[in-house]
Amino acid sequence: MIIGRVIGTIVSNAKEPKYEGYKLLVVKEMNVYGEYEKNFYIAADLIGSGIDEVVMLVTGAAARGSVETNEKGIDAVITAKIEKVFIDGKEIIF
Amino acid sequence: MIIGRVIGTIVSNAKEPKYEGYKLLVVKEMNVYGEYEKNFYIAADLIGSGIDEVVMLVTGAAARGSVETNEKGIDAVITAKIEKVFIDGKEIIF
Amino acid sequence: MIIGRVIGTIVSNAKEPKYEGYKLLVVKEMNVYGEYEKNFYIAADLIGSGIDEVVMLVTGAAARGSVETNEKGIDAVITAKIEKVFIDGKEIIF
Amino acid sequence: MIIGRVIGTIVSNAKEPKYEGYKLLVVKEMNVYGEYEKNFYIAADLIGSGIDEVVMLVTGAAARGSVETNEKGIDAVITAKIEKVFIDGKEIIF
Amino acid sequence: MIIGRVIGTIVSNAKEPKYEGYKLLVVKEMNVYGEYEKNFYIAADLIGSGIDEVVMLVTGAAARGSVETNEKGIDAVITAKIEKVFIDGKEIIF
Repeated sequence: MIIGRVIGTIVSNAKEPKYEGYKLLVVKEMNVYGEYEKNFYIAADLIGSGIDEVVMLVTGAAARGSVETNEKGIDAVITAKIEKVFIDGKEIIF
Repeated sequence: MIIGRVIGTIVSNAKEPKYEGYKLLVVKEMNVYGEYEKNFYIAADLIGSGIDEVVMLVTGAAARGSVETNEKGIDAVITAKIEKVFIDGKEIIF
Repeated sequence: MIIGRVIGTIVSNAKEPKYEGYKLLVVKEMNVYGEYEKNFYIAADLIGSGIDEVVMLVTGAAARGSVETNEKGIDAVITAKIEKVFIDGKEIIF
Repeated sequence: MIIGRVIGTIVSNAKEPKYEGYKLLVVKEMNVYGEYEKNFYIAADLIGSGIDEVVMLVTGAAARGSVETNEKGIDAVITAKIEKVFIDGKEIIF
Repeated sequence: MIIGRVIGTIVSNAKEPKYEGYKLLVVKEMNVYGEYEKNFYIAADLIGSGIDEVVMLVTGAAARGSVETNEKGIDAVITAKIEKVFIDGKEIIF
């Protein structure tokens, strides 16, 4: 899975019917030390994420295995908010 | 998912029967700020996209989960037109 | 999907039973302008491709969704011959 | 599959119901000679891994095929502890 | 699919039950001209491969489509031994 911060939203009116009811968010990838990586992800939000929150993404076909997106043509979903990360015994503050 | 602009079309006569009725488009990837990336995608169009439009792609196995392409041997589909992107509270114009 | 030119063949006698009857071809990737990329793909041929032809590949799990390769342990298939590509209104000659 | 060392843990309270009961660990990738690579993985632990242990990960859609994670929206799982690696007849010590 | 040479073995005792009976081998990737690439793969062996043999790998979710690994949490399998490769009409000797 991937960690990142929610930095934006996508507005789309002409889209596949299966997307109805999903918020599409822009997530900037972070490493486990809370530093930004260069990648951006557009992901469907399953847990009510807000701008600036640090979240966990599932990507690829596994994104379809989540509770609500089964078989919906979605390749990235936000499935959790990150509270804390402990690396080598130290707490990382995002 | 991936953002990009439709820049071309593919013409193919000898192909798998499952592709009948799909338009295959060439999409040049963009980042969320509307700048071109180096990747190109060949994708099946599900929503009637036209040249120069900015669209959203689903790639990989998840592409099969869309309404019309289920089990069709397609690894990239255009599933939405991008109207607006808001990043850090600002609207991005494509 | 990916574009490339068929440049070779693979000969294998000790292999999984599911591969019987498939020709395994070597495809060198091209961009949409007909220029070679550095990647090579080994792909199962579904449409009777010949050496030097420009073809379209489906890769990853989506390769299993094609007519004949369903559940066959194949991660790249040739599914179409490319006749023409139009980019920004101009025909690309391969 | 990928080899890596467990270096941390993720704490998340707001998450998809399907994650209940899984420990999410941070794994730093290693090559087969035991040298660190730059990638980190966040993976669900299936075998009771501890900090500093060298483990094997399954990534992508295949992660869903493991015993306990079938269809759970997980794209990386720890499925084995690495005891020894033999390369060119020599034992690699991690 | 990917070509590579078998260069090592993995020993693991604590692992998912589904791996019982599989040999896990280390494969160093080669290009179609028989030159080594930098990637290593850890793959389940389905065809009785030995050290130094040149083999073909299937990776990703497609690895699950092979005869014996269906739904087993494996993302790379060795499915064939490479006998010969012909590129541009010339036989490549590995």
